[in-house]
Amino acid sequence: MVFKANIKVLLKKSIFDPQGATIKHSLNTIGFENAEEVRVGKYLELKITAPDRATAETQAREMCEKLLYNPIIEIYDLEIVDI
Amino acid sequence: MVFKANIKVLLKKSIFDPQGATIKHSLNTIGFENAEEVRVGKYLELKITAPDRATAETQAREMCEKLLYNPIIEIYDLEIVDI
Repeated sequence: MVFKANIKVLLKKSIFDPQGATIKHSLNTIGFENAEEVRVGKYLELKITAPDRATAETQAREMCEKLLYNPIIEIYDLEIVDI
Repeated sequence: MVFKANIKVLLKKSIFDPQGATIKHSLNTIGFENAEEVRVGKYLELKITAPDRATAETQAREMCEKLLYNPIIEIYDLEIVDI
């Protein structure tokens, strides 16, 4: 079966996010004074062929740990979806 | 009230995604032969102060249209969450 993995990768709250700060500043400048605490990260979608959902999730977590996120400065959130 | 906007920005399906192709290749190389069709985009979280959810959503859409995504090559997905 084929599953879709949706992965969000964000900097940890304790790590300064200069890209987010820049976007917040830009939003405030163009008239959105009510935009606050902007954080920017990566979003990945990929397809995984696996016999079942649990295996797909385990594999996706391994992909995150081995390549897709940096545990020192980032956190990730994983969602497995049927397709 | 303060709402959280979660915004995913991805390249349109018809646009080649070299970053995704590179990550797919890396995943395949390190042993995940079952990873396919990797797409990479941006993920943004921000807080919006608005009188109600509908206003927050309208404002977040305006932010997307005016700054956060490029309608020529990208699509976005917006979710408004209570906090």
